[in-house]
Amino acid sequence: MKAGLYDDKLNEIASCSAEYGLITEGGRVECDPETYVKMLTDCIGRVAGGQQIDAISVDTQCETLILTDGTGKPLGNAIVWLDNRAGEEAVEIETHFGAEEIYRHTGQPQTAAAWPACKLLWLKKHIPGVFSRARKIFLLGDWLTYRLTGNFVTEGTLQSSSLYFDIAEHDWWDGMLDYIGVSRDMLPAILHTGDIAGYYRGIPVVAGAMDQIAGAVGAGAVREGIVTEMTGTTLAVFSACGSIPGYDQSGIVPCHLNHDGKYCRLMWTSAAGLALKWFRDGFMKELSFAGIDRIAKDIPPGSDGVCFVPHLCGSTMPVYDPSATAAFCGVRLCHNSAHFARAVMESVAFMLDECLDCLGNVGEIRSTGGGAKSSLWNQIKADVTGRTVAVLKAQETATRGSAIFAGVGIGVFPSVAAAGELVAPAERYIPSGTDYSGAKARYKEYCRRVNPKGTAADVR
Amino acid sequence: MKAGLYDDKLNEIASCSAEYGLITEGGRVECDPETYVKMLTDCIGRVAGGQQIDAISVDTQCETLILTDGTGKPLGNAIVWLDNRAGEEAVEIETHFGAEEIYRHTGQPQTAAAWPACKLLWLKKHIPGVFSRARKIFLLGDWLTYRLTGNFVTEGTLQSSSLYFDIAEHDWWDGMLDYIGVSRDMLPAILHTGDIAGYYRGIPVVAGAMDQIAGAVGAGAVREGIVTEMTGTTLAVFSACGSIPGYDQSGIVPCHLNHDGKYCRLMWTSAAGLALKWFRDGFMKELSFAGIDRIAKDIPPGSDGVCFVPHLCGSTMPVYDPSATAAFCGVRLCHNSAHFARAVMESVAFMLDECLDCLGNVGEIRSTGGGAKSSLWNQIKADVTGRTVAVLKAQETATRGSAIFAGVGIGVFPSVAAAGELVAPAERYIPSGTDYSGAKARYKEYCRRVNPKGTAADVR
Repeated sequence: MKAGLYDDKLNEIASCSAEYGLITEGGRVECDPETYVKMLTDCIGRVAGGQQIDAISVDTQCETLILTDGTGKPLGNAIVWLDNRAGEEAVEIETHFGAEEIYRHTGQPQTAAAWPACKLLWLKKHIPGVFSRARKIFLLGDWLTYRLTGNFVTEGTLQSSSLYFDIAEHDWWDGMLDYIGVSRDMLPAILHTGDIAGYYRGIPVVAGAMDQIAGAVGAGAVREGIVTEMTGTTLAVFSACGSIPGYDQSGIVPCHLNHDGKYCRLMWTSAAGLALKWFRDGFMKELSFAGIDRIAKDIPPGSDGVCFVPHLCGSTMPVYDPSATAAFCGVRLCHNSAHFARAVMESVAFMLDECLDCLGNVGEIRSTGGGAKSSLWNQIKADVTGRTVAVLKAQETATRGSAIFAGVGIGVFPSVAAAGELVAPAERYIPSGTDYSGAKARYKEYCRRVNPKGTAADVR
Repeated sequence: MKAGLYDDKLNEIASCSAEYGLITEGGRVECDPETYVKMLTDCIGRVAGGQQIDAISVDTQCETLILTDGTGKPLGNAIVWLDNRAGEEAVEIETHFGAEEIYRHTGQPQTAAAWPACKLLWLKKHIPGVFSRARKIFLLGDWLTYRLTGNFVTEGTLQSSSLYFDIAEHDWWDGMLDYIGVSRDMLPAILHTGDIAGYYRGIPVVAGAMDQIAGAVGAGAVREGIVTEMTGTTLAVFSACGSIPGYDQSGIVPCHLNHDGKYCRLMWTSAAGLALKWFRDGFMKELSFAGIDRIAKDIPPGSDGVCFVPHLCGSTMPVYDPSATAAFCGVRLCHNSAHFARAVMESVAFMLDECLDCLGNVGEIRSTGGGAKSSLWNQIKADVTGRTVAVLKAQETATRGSAIFAGVGIGVFPSVAAAGELVAPAERYIPSGTDYSGAKARYKEYCRRVNPKGTAADVR
C-alpha cells in the first residue's frame, strides 16, 4: 500500500508505503479486511505528519470482495482479486448470458473467476450461511471509504469488472443481480469520481477511481491519444475512449468506465519487468539492472536474431492462453547472455506494440513503472512502436492521480484535465528510425509457433 | 593431428598431438599439403622416441583433396573437406545422375559440395589450367601414405564419399569418372584395410581406414550391434552393417565401406559438446564442466519441462536444414540456468536416440569423446536410449583403431575382431528405468515447431 501527500502544484510533499501478506491456499487468496483499514489509517497519519490535509482520495485494485452484516462487521476474509476459486461459476455465468451480452453491459469480454459476480455465486453455493447473512457487499475501495467516512458508497470505475455494474447505464445490472441472487439494497450508493463521499476526522474524502485509472491520470493521460504503459511485474496499458467500442468476437480488450463518465480500455500481459528480473536472477545474478542495460546496449536492435517469447506465466492479451510457456528462439553460436537479456527487453516492447494495435488512437506514450528507469528500454519501446515515449520525473503515478481527484473534489483544481497538464514529462524518447520490422515479424511468428493456441496441450 | 604408440596389448606407450591452421576465405578452406607431411613425420618421431616401431597405419578425415603432377608435386593447396565452393557442381551432379543412382553406387544419400567429385568438377570449370596438369588425385590419407612410402595407393573406406568410388563393386565408378573428366590412371591403386602399402624407413605402413571407422574399431565396435557415439564438438554415431541398406527417398544415413569389406553407416549432427561449451561460456563462465554436472544433477529428468532445440549451427541428421536455429522452449518462472544446462545435455541424448532410430540393430553403445567424461551425461544417454552405455578407459580411440589395423597387417593380431576384444570398457551405465518418454516427445514436437523445414525462411 502506498500513500502520497501533494501540494496544489502536484509536488510530492511526503510519501510512505507498507507491505502486507496474503493468505493463500490452492487457488484461494484472502486477506483480513481489518489489515487494509489499519494500514490505510497508519499511512495517512505517516504522510500527514503534523500537517493539515485538505482532502483524501483512495484508489485500489478492482475485484477484491468483502461481505459484512448490517452493522458493517465482516463475515469473513476479503476474497482478493487474484482468487481463482470461482472458475466453474465463471463458466456458468458466461454460458447463461453469452459473452456478447455480458460485454454490452459490463465491457468485460471474458468472464473470469476473479470477477466479483462469480465469487458471490460461489459463496451462495458453497458457503450459503455467509451469503444469506450478507447485508453489505463491498469492493476494497468501498470498504476503505466506508471505514473512513461511515458511508456505504462506491463509484463506477471500480465496479466495471464486478460484472453486476452496467457501464453504459451507470447503474447496477439487474439481470446479473437477479441471476446471482443479490438485491440492490445490499449494494452501495453510486457516486461519480470527484464527488464528496464523506469526511474522515473533518477532512473531505473524495470518490476516486480504480488504481489503473488513477495511475493513468497521475501520468497525465487526461486526453484521448495519450496512452500509459506501466512496465512493472506485468505490463499494463491504458487508453481513454469516448464510447464503448462495439463487441468483437475475438474481443480481448476490457472496457471500463473512466473517471470522466466516458470510457477507457485496459490491457495487461503477464511477466514484463518480471521476465527481466527472472533472467537477471537466474542467469546473470552478478549484474544490476543498470549493468544489464550496459551489456544489452552493445547488442544490435533485433538482438541479432534472438527472440524471446515472454510467456513465463502464460499469456493474457492479445492471446489468452494460461498454458503458454516462454522460449528463446533463433539462437546461434554467436549469441550469449547479453543477446538474451536484450531479447527479453525487446519482447516487452513487442507486447506493448501488440497492445497498441488493439487499442488504436495512440499519440504519445507515457511510460511508468520500474521499467521506465531504463533509458535503453524506453528507446527500444519508442523505436518498436514508432511513438514518442515520455517518462515522468516521479514514477509513482497512482497516488498523484488520487491527489488530482481529491483536489478536483474540493475545487483546488478546476478539472482533472487542467490538473493533468501539471504532469510534465521529464524526458521524451523519439523514434530513431531503427527498423524493428524484421524482429517484430520474428516475434509474432515464434509466438505463434511455440504456443499455437489450442494445441498447447500437445507438448505438455 | 594425433599420434599414438601402442604395445601388443593395446596399452598406450606414448602419444602426441599437434595443431595446424587452415586457410579460409568465404566458403573456401585450404591447407598446404606439406604441412600435413611435416606434422606426420614429426609426430612419428616424437611418439617413437628411441624405440623400435613395428608398423604404422594412418587414419584421416575423408574428403580433403590434393592434386599433383606426374612427379607428385602438388598443383596447389589441399582443398579441405570443409570447403564449400562446389555447391553448384553438387547440384549439377545430383541432377544428372539422380539421388538414387548415386546412393546405389556410393552409399551417399546427399550430394554435398564437400565431396571430391564436386570439387574436381569445380576445378575443371574454374581452374582448367590446374585440372589439365593433374596426373595424380589424392585424398589426404593417400597423400600421407604416398609421402611415407612412395606408393600411389588408397583403400575403399576413405574413398566412400569421394562420389567416384563404387562401394558395392569395390572399384572406381566409371560413370562418375567419365562425367567429371577423370581417367582411372589419375587414381591410386585400391588396397584393403590391413594390406601393406609400402615401407617408411624400413617400417611397414599398413592401409588403415577413415578416421571415424578407426575410432569405432578403437572403441571396440568390431561386431554388428555395438554402436559408437562420439560427443565431441559434434555428435557422430557409427554402426556396422552386413550389406548396403536399400535406398530410402528420405534417405539420410550415409553408408560407407567398412574396414572388413562389409559396410557401416555414419550419422552426425552439429553442435553437441559444442552446445554445452557454448552455454557454459556464454551463460555460466564461472563453472567448470564438472560444476555444470553438479548443478544439472539436481534438476529432475526432463529438465522440468525446459527443452533445448540444439541446432546452433543448423541441423544435419535426421533433418538436414542448414538454416535451422536453436531454442530453449517450455520455459517458466521456476526455471534457471541449471535447468537450461541440463536441457542442453538432454538434447544431445535425444539427438543420439534419433540417430539410433535411423540405424537399427543397436545393442550396446560405446561412448567416446569429451562428453563421455561426464557420468551424468552417460547416465542420461543410457536412460533416454534405453541402452547400456559403455565408457572406455582411454578416450582416444582413433589412434588405437589405427594401431589395431597396423598390428593386423603385420600379424601381431589375428584379426580386427580379436584385437577389438582387448578394448574393454572401464564402466557401464545401465538404463535406470527413468521415464524420458514425455521429454522425448516434447523434444520432437519443439524441434518441429521451431524449425519446420521448408518454412524456415519465414522467420529469417
